[in-house]
Amino acid sequence: MSMSLNGNRNLMEMEYAVRGPIPQKAAKLKEQGREIIFCNIGNPQSLGQLPMSFPRQVLSLIENPTFIRREKELARLSSVSPALPHLDLIESEVIEYAENIISKIGSGTGAYTESRGAKFIREAVAKFIDRRDGPGAPPSDPDSIFLTDGAGQGAQHIIQLLISSPDDAIMIPIPQYPLYSAAIKKFGGTQIGYYPDEENDWALSRTELESAWQNAGKNGKKIKALVVINPGNPTGAVLDEKSINEIIDFAMEKEIAVIADEVYQENIYDGAAPFISFAKALGNRELPLFSLHSVSKGFLGECGHRGAYLELRNPPSLADSSLSFMEVLTKMASVNLCSNTVGQILVYIMTTPPPSGTRTAEIHDSERKGILSDLSKKALMIRDTFTKMDNVKCFGRTGAMYLFPSLNKLPRGTNDFDYCMALLEETGLCTVNGGGFGQKEGTQHLRIAFLPPFEKLQEVLPKWVDFHKRYLGDRKPAS
Amino acid sequence: MSMSLNGNRNLMEMEYAVRGPIPQKAAKLKEQGREIIFCNIGNPQSLGQLPMSFPRQVLSLIENPTFIRREKELARLSSVSPALPHLDLIESEVIEYAENIISKIGSGTGAYTESRGAKFIREAVAKFIDRRDGPGAPPSDPDSIFLTDGAGQGAQHIIQLLISSPDDAIMIPIPQYPLYSAAIKKFGGTQIGYYPDEENDWALSRTELESAWQNAGKNGKKIKALVVINPGNPTGAVLDEKSINEIIDFAMEKEIAVIADEVYQENIYDGAAPFISFAKALGNRELPLFSLHSVSKGFLGECGHRGAYLELRNPPSLADSSLSFMEVLTKMASVNLCSNTVGQILVYIMTTPPPSGTRTAEIHDSERKGILSDLSKKALMIRDTFTKMDNVKCFGRTGAMYLFPSLNKLPRGTNDFDYCMALLEETGLCTVNGGGFGQKEGTQHLRIAFLPPFEKLQEVLPKWVDFHKRYLGDRKPAS
Repeated sequence: MSMSLNGNRNLMEMEYAVRGPIPQKAAKLKEQGREIIFCNIGNPQSLGQLPMSFPRQVLSLIENPTFIRREKELARLSSVSPALPHLDLIESEVIEYAENIISKIGSGTGAYTESRGAKFIREAVAKFIDRRDGPGAPPSDPDSIFLTDGAGQGAQHIIQLLISSPDDAIMIPIPQYPLYSAAIKKFGGTQIGYYPDEENDWALSRTELESAWQNAGKNGKKIKALVVINPGNPTGAVLDEKSINEIIDFAMEKEIAVIADEVYQENIYDGAAPFISFAKALGNRELPLFSLHSVSKGFLGECGHRGAYLELRNPPSLADSSLSFMEVLTKMASVNLCSNTVGQILVYIMTTPPPSGTRTAEIHDSERKGILSDLSKKALMIRDTFTKMDNVKCFGRTGAMYLFPSLNKLPRGTNDFDYCMALLEETGLCTVNGGGFGQKEGTQHLRIAFLPPFEKLQEVLPKWVDFHKRYLGDRKPAS
Repeated sequence: MSMSLNGNRNLMEMEYAVRGPIPQKAAKLKEQGREIIFCNIGNPQSLGQLPMSFPRQVLSLIENPTFIRREKELARLSSVSPALPHLDLIESEVIEYAENIISKIGSGTGAYTESRGAKFIREAVAKFIDRRDGPGAPPSDPDSIFLTDGAGQGAQHIIQLLISSPDDAIMIPIPQYPLYSAAIKKFGGTQIGYYPDEENDWALSRTELESAWQNAGKNGKKIKALVVINPGNPTGAVLDEKSINEIIDFAMEKEIAVIADEVYQENIYDGAAPFISFAKALGNRELPLFSLHSVSKGFLGECGHRGAYLELRNPPSLADSSLSFMEVLTKMASVNLCSNTVGQILVYIMTTPPPSGTRTAEIHDSERKGILSDLSKKALMIRDTFTKMDNVKCFGRTGAMYLFPSLNKLPRGTNDFDYCMALLEETGLCTVNGGGFGQKEGTQHLRIAFLPPFEKLQEVLPKWVDFHKRYLGDRKPAS
């Protein structure tokens, strides 16, 4: 018997370019022995960024608390015995930090936590948000925070709950991170694109938002929420206060929620505008706001551990339901039992730095600065390379982990997908074409994550310049 | 502005009793200072089961590889210096085991893996399945294995992909683990219950399966798959070969897939029939089979780490799609990027025991036996208590982590929900009523996880016997 059945059409049609055909081709080339530089995804530790010391020491002690006893014994021995000169002992503040987590998490990393995540970690997140945003915004509520397996899980929960019919629509920026288009498709809703102004450093205008709104209305679509990614993915653009308020005003007037993807909030470089959270800009205004943050980006770069949080402010009420928005979300979280405990602990570590004034804090801070400064230098290095390529332009201040240059005047009959495929085959550099994120019709782009080690960039960037010259010059139109 | 909107009706209606009203009430009582024994969920480490030593040592070394250098240095020092007599050194085979994982995972725990999970771990899973099932079944294929954040994620992916319209139905046993009813609801399909025969130790009959099938047909429903949980949750029943073949024959004749939840495959006690996997029983027959397993149960009990796998055999083809079933599943996995790496590594550890003949293997084995024998004794202790209660009967051989006794002749006007609520309030014992899992109309049950420490059971079981007597004797009919 070879069975055939009808599958869920939304899932079959859903696309996710970040792990689409170009990265799949790259994986095949790698299997064949080619050296590939994977710049298709913001996965810093796969490109040589070292894990930070403090978080890993803490995780290690929590997974195996017998090491704590051992560490204390070693400290005692080394104080009485000169036979142990070369042992790097774990600082006592790290041990205390780990012991504090162990005492609060109760049953260790091996037990399910509450569905929403361990309460002490949600409390730490709320404190972090309050510190970050200062006294302007109302305090963050630990009971409005959900810990999730990566920020994508929180985004998907919200989008699924908001979509109650195929005509329910979510506004997303174009270009966007394809998690959003995929989730809208997956849950059977409609995506409505709005277009930040590329040549104006991807700034937003009210006119543009209104035009997307009109467009939806004409097609009988009901917009439920607007997604904004700040700093931007794939553009790297950092929104200024004016753009943020434009979005808030628009959403309040139209009575729609805002989903603010703020996972790159620490990734702002070269003196670009400071990060302003949507929660802070919103202040006391009662707009439903869902904000996402994660341990995968920033300076931690702990992608594999899948730690993230979702914060709700002013959740809407649900028509015809005795349950609140929070209660339904909690039920959704409970079907998955809980997010993974190690990811949860990393969220705690991200939001609760080591005690200041200690040697650990000093090292942690210096590692943090080193990582962010490396990212900044690498971004500049790639941006600078673009100036050596004809018809390549890169707008926007530098944020997130990506550059999103436009590729103009590609040979007739080719597009950015062909370009990225050829770039991969000729140089080993794996990027994602602009089409994978959505782009204004008639434009061509690519997204590159600025994460590879300097020496790899030094090696590959000149090859890219050569490739580009050949691609623009030599290619004959395909038709 | 206080916004109100239409939410996704399926999510609002979805139920999940394992974290439903009774456990929520228990959490409130606990906050008020009451001692609560949480037997509502299979969460062994929250009830005092210690994590096994070997897996945690490995995780600890992988999270912080500087400990590996230190461990080697300590071993060297302790061989030359008598100053270090009391240090429990990590055995060299554990260090080698961890080093092997580090070398294979490449970028450590901090990087995203392939969407389906790291290949070397999927290979280890395939080898484990082949060892478990012996030469009867075709070999397991690492490319047909997906690593997931808990087994529930794999089950949800399959159910979502199988449901293409509200008339698409999935057969589930009644009683069932409410993940299945919740997932079917969540993705807008129809559940069709089939009823194992309680008084015949929950055995299955072809007649019963046929009657569920007829029932679906009459209502215009198209059955796509049948869920079976073996060992059973909530019943603890262990299926014999005859029942398994009955299901396979039925599914082949009807051309539907089988979803085999086998997460309790190590949890079989007191000489009950051996575990027979659906893959083994299936052999070379070409039935679509989806099998689930997890690190949360068995003897590891590592619930919080959310590690699990899904194995596909003979996946169906998808009508009107150029994509294979595997390709769509891979795309679904890719939207979540990957499951958490620590959970993945625990799947590796579960499927790759420490090298035999070593001291580590000896300790690991003795810990494993201790955990399983404790579980068995606790199950017997609770079963024995039921014999002291009037009108309580517990059928089925003892498997999984649960007992599911029937409560007969409850006072008129009360049901098992009332009983469990009262039991909680009077004794602090948190169970889940049979209605939360579904049960034959007119019957009443409860599910209890047999996980609390002996001394807690010794304390609470006599209280339960007293409570039961009062509940059956004293209560007046409510109406």
